Amino acid sequence: MAGNIFGSVLKITTFGESHGAALGCVLDGVPAGIEISAKEIQVDLDRRRPGQSKVTTSRKEGDRVEILSGVFEGKTLGTPIALLIRNENQKSGDYSKIKNIFRPGHADFTWEKKFGIRDFRGGGRSSGRETVARVAAAALAKKILVKKRIQVLAHAESIGCVEAEAFDPKNIQKNSVRCADSSAAKEMEKVILEAQKRGDSVGGIIGIIVRNVPAGLGEPVFDKTEALLARALMSIGGVKGIEFGVGFAATKLFGSEMNDELISLCKKKTNRAGGIAGGITDGDEILIRLAVKPTASISISQNTVDSKGKAKKIQISGRHDPCLVPRIIPVAEAMVQLVLADLLLAGKNDKI
Amino acid sequence: MAGNIFGSVLKITTFGESHGAALGCVLDGVPAGIEISAKEIQVDLDRRRPGQSKVTTSRKEGDRVEILSGVFEGKTLGTPIALLIRNENQKSGDYSKIKNIFRPGHADFTWEKKFGIRDFRGGGRSSGRETVARVAAAALAKKILVKKRIQVLAHAESIGCVEAEAFDPKNIQKNSVRCADSSAAKEMEKVILEAQKRGDSVGGIIGIIVRNVPAGLGEPVFDKTEALLARALMSIGGVKGIEFGVGFAATKLFGSEMNDELISLCKKKTNRAGGIAGGITDGDEILIRLAVKPTASISISQNTVDSKGKAKKIQISGRHDPCLVPRIIPVAEAMVQLVLADLLLAGKNDKI
Amino acid sequence: MAGNIFGSVLKITTFGESHGAALGCVLDGVPAGIEISAKEIQVDLDRRRPGQSKVTTSRKEGDRVEILSGVFEGKTLGTPIALLIRNENQKSGDYSKIKNIFRPGHADFTWEKKFGIRDFRGGGRSSGRETVARVAAAALAKKILVKKRIQVLAHAESIGCVEAEAFDPKNIQKNSVRCADSSAAKEMEKVILEAQKRGDSVGGIIGIIVRNVPAGLGEPVFDKTEALLARALMSIGGVKGIEFGVGFAATKLFGSEMNDELISLCKKKTNRAGGIAGGITDGDEILIRLAVKPTASISISQNTVDSKGKAKKIQISGRHDPCLVPRIIPVAEAMVQLVLADLLLAGKNDKI
Amino acid sequence: MAGNIFGSVLKITTFGESHGAALGCVLDGVPAGIEISAKEIQVDLDRRRPGQSKVTTSRKEGDRVEILSGVFEGKTLGTPIALLIRNENQKSGDYSKIKNIFRPGHADFTWEKKFGIRDFRGGGRSSGRETVARVAAAALAKKILVKKRIQVLAHAESIGCVEAEAFDPKNIQKNSVRCADSSAAKEMEKVILEAQKRGDSVGGIIGIIVRNVPAGLGEPVFDKTEALLARALMSIGGVKGIEFGVGFAATKLFGSEMNDELISLCKKKTNRAGGIAGGITDGDEILIRLAVKPTASISISQNTVDSKGKAKKIQISGRHDPCLVPRIIPVAEAMVQLVLADLLLAGKNDKI
Repeated sequence: MAGNIFGSVLKITTFGESHGAALGCVLDGVPAGIEISAKEIQVDLDRRRPGQSKVTTSRKEGDRVEILSGVFEGKTLGTPIALLIRNENQKSGDYSKIKNIFRPGHADFTWEKKFGIRDFRGGGRSSGRETVARVAAAALAKKILVKKRIQVLAHAESIGCVEAEAFDPKNIQKNSVRCADSSAAKEMEKVILEAQKRGDSVGGIIGIIVRNVPAGLGEPVFDKTEALLARALMSIGGVKGIEFGVGFAATKLFGSEMNDELISLCKKKTNRAGGIAGGITDGDEILIRLAVKPTASISISQNTVDSKGKAKKIQISGRHDPCLVPRIIPVAEAMVQLVLADLLLAGKNDKI
Repeated sequence: MAGNIFGSVLKITTFGESHGAALGCVLDGVPAGIEISAKEIQVDLDRRRPGQSKVTTSRKEGDRVEILSGVFEGKTLGTPIALLIRNENQKSGDYSKIKNIFRPGHADFTWEKKFGIRDFRGGGRSSGRETVARVAAAALAKKILVKKRIQVLAHAESIGCVEAEAFDPKNIQKNSVRCADSSAAKEMEKVILEAQKRGDSVGGIIGIIVRNVPAGLGEPVFDKTEALLARALMSIGGVKGIEFGVGFAATKLFGSEMNDELISLCKKKTNRAGGIAGGITDGDEILIRLAVKPTASISISQNTVDSKGKAKKIQISGRHDPCLVPRIIPVAEAMVQLVLADLLLAGKNDKI
Repeated sequence: MAGNIFGSVLKITTFGESHGAALGCVLDGVPAGIEISAKEIQVDLDRRRPGQSKVTTSRKEGDRVEILSGVFEGKTLGTPIALLIRNENQKSGDYSKIKNIFRPGHADFTWEKKFGIRDFRGGGRSSGRETVARVAAAALAKKILVKKRIQVLAHAESIGCVEAEAFDPKNIQKNSVRCADSSAAKEMEKVILEAQKRGDSVGGIIGIIVRNVPAGLGEPVFDKTEALLARALMSIGGVKGIEFGVGFAATKLFGSEMNDELISLCKKKTNRAGGIAGGITDGDEILIRLAVKPTASISISQNTVDSKGKAKKIQISGRHDPCLVPRIIPVAEAMVQLVLADLLLAGKNDKI
Repeated sequence: MAGNIFGSVLKITTFGESHGAALGCVLDGVPAGIEISAKEIQVDLDRRRPGQSKVTTSRKEGDRVEILSGVFEGKTLGTPIALLIRNENQKSGDYSKIKNIFRPGHADFTWEKKFGIRDFRGGGRSSGRETVARVAAAALAKKILVKKRIQVLAHAESIGCVEAEAFDPKNIQKNSVRCADSSAAKEMEKVILEAQKRGDSVGGIIGIIVRNVPAGLGEPVFDKTEALLARALMSIGGVKGIEFGVGFAATKLFGSEMNDELISLCKKKTNRAGGIAGGITDGDEILIRLAVKPTASISISQNTVDSKGKAKKIQISGRHDPCLVPRIIPVAEAMVQLVLADLLLAGKNDKI
């Protein structure tokens, strides 16, 4: 299986370890004739880049993208597009002391079990740094979505116990936590910094809204839109749950409360289903919520074992995000974009 | 894309409409030499079969399975295994009056949009009846899991507002709602029957526990165990959310509360992660919760439109499950079994 | 891998053993809205059916096809189309004496080695009977090709040492060997019957011409049109070689003799390349030649070993085709149709 | 479809245009724990590299490979292995004058038709230069084969009308045409240089022998060993035909002459089938022959049209191989290695 290829018509292969030479991706199946430049992709990478605010890791990475193939005179050729991002600031020295010890909440133990070998520097490929390649790939997917005016918007719904109460999309880019509620944002930032001061970390919920989705996307029965989105989003490290529309709250409703009545051929009275029925989009906004766990890397002392099974204390001292929510937001958007672009291309063959 | 093929090493193709001639599946990639009989598969189908208790639809289907290929003298040949289940009790007459009207909460509108044509009889392929082929396929997957003693157990955690408080697996098969708490089960049954009497329906939560999972399953980065399970389970009609381990509750914990400390090379102090770290199983139980919405088919009058967009009232009178939870339980187990069998086979090539 | 699924956008899964309950296929990815009936598919199956002339096996099979799913009121639904052909005339008794002996030129030994088990009755899935499912599937592919007026035509170019010298397509259906040259056909038939009388078999060459192919089909670099066609056609049992255009003769030409000069944007002076350049169709006829070996089943006594490795004599007495060429012709057409329909659908996403 | 991903368990994605920034590949599915270094891969690339003898193009390319990911401390990690080869000697100036003109025998016209855009510099991705990524990928595949002592050997069987008459593998690396017959090699070289002097090119036949293949590889029915090898080898630009064992000569044999009698459980009297029966390897040598057309690029004046359809004369003046056979030999070996490594990994799941 090997799991590093994503998509059905638009196929993305990503590669790279946190402290290896480089990360990157190859996109196969991008239609010819799309205008794209490294500069445009860079804008998206910069949004994901670490070291941008006080609530993110201080690791500085330029994350400069280079287009290696598939683009000629500013347009896609229909051939594979390879994108390269070199690692610049590896600081491998930070990690040598954890070479033989398993960090709680991390993938150290499981990857060792699976492969019998692992790149212990910064988690290797299990590092969140891997997602830079996803965001780069999505810059192309976005170009396909934009033809249909489809827009994907992710934001912090809650951090720890602080919940957003207002929703003004313009605010999202204005605060360090990417929350659409400015005053909640301040509280969220405070919660993060307090946890960080104690050497601890916090989790939160990401809301995702997709606008202008045409009705008719999705490939039942196994590739229903929710199924593909769930797989895509659950493949982001740190995500522990997902719900669509009213989600878990649906379990406490009656059918008469849950069903969205149709008002016309393009309008429903409510959108409790979250824009998908029978696995196919209904033309309404797709509504998703993601549960993000608190960062596993904390500097508080924890019990664990080493590779021989001997009990050890561990205190993780590197540069880490005290909360993953703001960092995952652009990655979540990227994954949704990759899925929807794939479904749009697949949909060309729905009817004869 | 077309979405009716599932799995990577063990590939399952399902087919069939609710009121067509038959449903079934073809499994490609089942190793040779596995003992299997139609009788064994039948046991699983009987568990999923409608008409077994007062809380399920009264539609009577024999759901008799026939093995068409791939099995010889009681053993798998390594060739594709085709399984056939004929529809016996279609009652197409029930459905003709909804031919040109879109049922709220159903896939009628979206499938029409996508394909420009649909089998309106009982929802066609968007019917839950499609899942019979999944359960049949999983009977083979289970044979692969059993060699590792892996056991998948699903049960009703809540129905409407009634929550299970005790957990004794022996109880699951003893009540109509498949709850591990006998006294909660009675309350749940009551809630379902009351809703049904009013022509309404209820939702609920399914808990899934997977035991004896070896450490090392999962194929990061895109085919992480959670990602594959989420896709598999979200592809079941009516499921609106999924969480692993503590799930959404993780969003309110600190890292120091969330991380599972290691006690030895095969034991953690806690299992908040739900048996998976970095997308790979850690040897602990996999813990999943599924949000199931209330059945869309209700006999209470609802507003909707017809295929011309004209406002209509609709009252659905057929035979329907007032609650999907008990029916989905064996299907959820099937999907987990298919994913884990696939990962076990894929895992053969982890190391040289 | 498991190898029973074919195609990329239009995915065909076939199943079935020669003497099992049934053979069949499931097609996933057929666009909705295509008119199709069992009767139409039957026409193609009848062309492949055994027992039609003195040069084919006398095994009588009705090969009646049943559409199990995916078609409603005479049109495809966009859902998987399952087609079923039951085995009627298995005569399993014929085969029991070869249960533990490996027939020369057959797959008995290799399948035993691979799977450790085999259905020894008539070769099981390694029987040419498997191809009935391919022909059934191609009936749908043909419906996609017909919209572009694409026509695939296969015929006997040679049988043993007899070569066709004239080419009149009208003749192909008029003689038992499916040769476009009526007088050569008579000689070919004679060669086959003489070999059969001696208990022997003969081989031959199949020519394939594809007309009205639009320019632009093919997916370089690995899914070039020749690459996909070669795989598809080499997957037919008994085919030992394939060439495109002038084929092996190209190896003795100079570049100045081989290159096809362009006369206009839709015409070349010659077609030595066989309608494909750089893996993509050029709008000219696709020209293919297939080498078909003589049937492995002969009643002349041969040396072999049994499953313990002990030397044995074997004389195969069942009903067998003395020459595979006429039987393979409709199967070769089917495989070309499946590839081209797949490429046509994939091509929808060439450009933005 | 998009065609740049190859393989089922061991998946290779290649990218790159002839005159773009770089070429390369990503391998997903390589087991962990394989020792590999850039130096080892370089040895294979050097064998394919242009400019090594008087019968190959004078284009000088360093073809230096860099390992970007998937290897740590000299061993594979089980994560994707990305390999990068930068283009150094593009000389784009050479190509500007053919920007709007279609070279006969080349892919210019067909790629333009398909994508509506093309990188006209040196053929872009339709250039043979693309194969450098295949050879790099195969260096890893070879590591898997070597565990089973499988050895793939390709050599020039004929160039133009000169045929090899002796076969001594030691000679292959000793002459510029890679022929196993030293005296034929001299004649072959002469034929090539004479054609080149006239501005013309020649074709030839490549023989491939695979030794120490275990019995049991291949995935019928569609992924038979011949089918996968045919697809892999026909995907190399310039290959117009392929045959296995006696190949086309089989069409003139009787069954009694063609069948390979078994002498023991590991030995046949003959190997006319070429090491494969029923799509599965039989433990004997795999024998393949490839038809390679003469190079399309010739400096003799040819008739063609420009992008408006206007008649033009063209004389191609760049640096080109006068014969593709010696250059394709390492690429053919690479493709066979990729297929067999894939089948070896897939075969792990043949039996329970």
